[in-house]
Amino acid sequence: MNNEFMPNFLLKRAFLTPKRTAIYFHDETLTFQELYDRAYDTAGKLQKLSLRKDQYVGVLLKTHLDTVIILFALQLLGVKAVILNNRLTPTELTWQLTDSKAAFLITETAFSNMGLPKQIIKEELFAVEKEIPVIQEEISLSEVCTIMYTSGTTGNPKGVMQTYGNHWWSAVGSALNLGINDHDCWLCAVPLFHISGYSILMRSVIYGMPIVLHESFHVEKTLKDLTEKKVTIMSVVTTTLTRIVDHLKEESLPNHFRCMLLGGGPAPLPLLEKCVEKNIPVFQSYGMTETASQIVTLSPEYSLSKLGSAGKPLFPAQIKIELEDGQAASKGKPGEIVVKGPNVTKGYLFRPEVTREKIHDGWLYTGDIGYLDDEGFLFVLDRRSDLIISGGENIYPAELEAVLLAHPDIVDAGVTGMEDAKWGHVPAAFIVKKEGSTLSEEELVQFCLDRLAKYKVPKGFYFTKSLPRNAAKKLLRRKLWEWIKEGSDKE
Amino acid sequence: MNNEFMPNFLLKRAFLTPKRTAIYFHDETLTFQELYDRAYDTAGKLQKLSLRKDQYVGVLLKTHLDTVIILFALQLLGVKAVILNNRLTPTELTWQLTDSKAAFLITETAFSNMGLPKQIIKEELFAVEKEIPVIQEEISLSEVCTIMYTSGTTGNPKGVMQTYGNHWWSAVGSALNLGINDHDCWLCAVPLFHISGYSILMRSVIYGMPIVLHESFHVEKTLKDLTEKKVTIMSVVTTTLTRIVDHLKEESLPNHFRCMLLGGGPAPLPLLEKCVEKNIPVFQSYGMTETASQIVTLSPEYSLSKLGSAGKPLFPAQIKIELEDGQAASKGKPGEIVVKGPNVTKGYLFRPEVTREKIHDGWLYTGDIGYLDDEGFLFVLDRRSDLIISGGENIYPAELEAVLLAHPDIVDAGVTGMEDAKWGHVPAAFIVKKEGSTLSEEELVQFCLDRLAKYKVPKGFYFTKSLPRNAAKKLLRRKLWEWIKEGSDKE
Repeated sequence: MNNEFMPNFLLKRAFLTPKRTAIYFHDETLTFQELYDRAYDTAGKLQKLSLRKDQYVGVLLKTHLDTVIILFALQLLGVKAVILNNRLTPTELTWQLTDSKAAFLITETAFSNMGLPKQIIKEELFAVEKEIPVIQEEISLSEVCTIMYTSGTTGNPKGVMQTYGNHWWSAVGSALNLGINDHDCWLCAVPLFHISGYSILMRSVIYGMPIVLHESFHVEKTLKDLTEKKVTIMSVVTTTLTRIVDHLKEESLPNHFRCMLLGGGPAPLPLLEKCVEKNIPVFQSYGMTETASQIVTLSPEYSLSKLGSAGKPLFPAQIKIELEDGQAASKGKPGEIVVKGPNVTKGYLFRPEVTREKIHDGWLYTGDIGYLDDEGFLFVLDRRSDLIISGGENIYPAELEAVLLAHPDIVDAGVTGMEDAKWGHVPAAFIVKKEGSTLSEEELVQFCLDRLAKYKVPKGFYFTKSLPRNAAKKLLRRKLWEWIKEGSDKE
Repeated sequence: MNNEFMPNFLLKRAFLTPKRTAIYFHDETLTFQELYDRAYDTAGKLQKLSLRKDQYVGVLLKTHLDTVIILFALQLLGVKAVILNNRLTPTELTWQLTDSKAAFLITETAFSNMGLPKQIIKEELFAVEKEIPVIQEEISLSEVCTIMYTSGTTGNPKGVMQTYGNHWWSAVGSALNLGINDHDCWLCAVPLFHISGYSILMRSVIYGMPIVLHESFHVEKTLKDLTEKKVTIMSVVTTTLTRIVDHLKEESLPNHFRCMLLGGGPAPLPLLEKCVEKNIPVFQSYGMTETASQIVTLSPEYSLSKLGSAGKPLFPAQIKIELEDGQAASKGKPGEIVVKGPNVTKGYLFRPEVTREKIHDGWLYTGDIGYLDDEGFLFVLDRRSDLIISGGENIYPAELEAVLLAHPDIVDAGVTGMEDAKWGHVPAAFIVKKEGSTLSEEELVQFCLDRLAKYKVPKGFYFTKSLPRNAAKKLLRRKLWEWIKEGSDKE
């Protein structure tokens, strides 16, 4: 089909507007031509090291200009990037590399001593003599571009396949909602290994728009660059937006700034009220790795009148709410949020059975609960019951429980989220110990730190005699959550 | 494939931004909700008259708000609109209606006495009692939305199939080039039966942008509305742009105006120079019915330095220049212009053999001649040799020759374009009469008027003893053109 094929995004962008600024990183500024030239060189070096089209290759890098160049080099070669969260432990990383059959791992010195297989160290890569790379001048929209892992109720993470088309349509859907202005500039202070960050790179080349890339979020640096780099749009999560708002005091954001794109769960009322007061235009949104970023977005004019709503689905997307019996929910009635659109993943890597379970006829069953109001605005009541969002990172209780249950002294374990002033939510674990065990909280923390990224380690451990389970022995996580709410320690 | 499906464009737009202005027409203003409601009502009436999904239905209407409503009603029903040029003769119209197997013809009183088959008269349609229509809430991008006829070297017009995807990608490609600003408003003073006009309707619903619709081009009305309706973009052809520029005298266009999108062939240097002088931002473009409007566009900053260039292909599109032996032409070397992209037609209605001849592996062979310069800018040297562009209308010599040859007194006929101060070019005919015939120019004009739209009737007739043909007896139209240039009457 004709609709399938398009020029390679960065190649085309460098051809159309070679002299436009592509990226600001610290004191460096690259045009699209310069970005292309560096990605092209790097593609030549990667090819020299035997990377080839259609391979899966792990990428474990900090957010950095080099990372941007490497990610685009992989697109030029037609290599599928398995983009790894750099806060994971060696065990977690190895699992994802094995699962994705990664032919190589591109990483950097800082991460090179974890004993991961088939490493290409960035610092050494750049010193390699390049050869002339075979560039994929044309791409198919249905071809896989990136893999990002996400967990689920089963404990094991699954690789979400994001095609070029998913990224393309996500960028276009966002553009039709936010507009594309001549002077747009997007600040990226979210990780490139998350879809929130990676999608900014794609928008940059598709729109021909500069981005300001920060290695991590710093509130002073953010405010400085919003003014100096004339940033118009920024992606934030609740925790970062809170820090910006708190830091602003009397002054307001510069006039050219037009959009705080807020992801990672609904925002608390006081925060939104403060934003209105300080004239900060907040676009709340709902999305996930499987939708290649936002799929539902709320415009600022509705941020108070539709408080708590995630908005309406972007132009190319559709949404429905389904009851447990498979019927469509009527207006106002909660059910599972089901989404469809060309930005929705075609499935999970090497897991056709999970794909078939989650995606029916193009409709993705998110597991999240919500309802549509009379005007069709989406209200997300609960991210899937097993999901904890902590400072923008997703944490899956089942994954933590599997780790805890591997401890010889633990007979049962249940994990839930608890509220936290700084991170929104953090995980808490309920533990049933073997009779006579002297296992302490300190030992448990260390046990987890050895196996889980630090942000996943439970911030609270509660020893209890039994866990709440239903007749089918299914863990009732919501009950655990109530226990915490009640402030009760069940030991 | 997931990428195939999207919500019906107008339905989705009315859902997303119901209160935004969709269209200004004379003193009427409709929001997207109102436009949807009227299209929905009309769909109910059309369904009552037995229109059904997947039928081909002719549309022969003047440019008018009613036409917009009917065109969207057809999209809601999933009916494929065969959009007819309302300057054609009954013979020409009947040919296209028969060729497209049109189940009905939607027309209006002004055109109802031409004896065309299966008519639904607009004025009667609106009086019909409506029923509840079956709306296509979801559309497939590969589904045919519209058919527009275009002629070729063979004389008979062919129906170009334009899918929803073609229109979508055309709108998106244009947006990525021109941007989408909050306050954009597009003036449509080109016919809705041409892709230049129809594509403005599609951009309106896809962007959520108001349009100002004029029944035809009037320079005073245009200048008035550019200011009063705060128009930012307008589609023009050389003749209309010339009239605007001539009319402007001392004053300049309002500040909010940002783009004259110029189609229908390269612009003459003096016109472009005047536009620069008067600060009129002209975007020259190259496109055709088969590409669902522009596929190559030149930004104003290059309008003089790249004088005569049509620009670079839009983001989703690709272009190459091919020599007669099928090899790619090197930079600067002329050859056939070949284009590819998701906005390119999937082919000609009921003509798989023509489709196979014109489209190879997604690449459309345009028949136009051009070259790419060192920087990749396209220069169109000649629209396909048999094409005459007269005031934005395409005229195909082969079609006129076929009509002339049907006259009993004519043994041979050849048509070419000649320059015309008002229309750019007009057709001229060279005639070889039967020995002893007394056929006069007046008789020939009347003969043509009975069979051809008025704009196609040759403005000059030259009687000659023979026509220039090559060894294979192929007519050398370029030779005719030279004869005219030399001012010689060959009789």
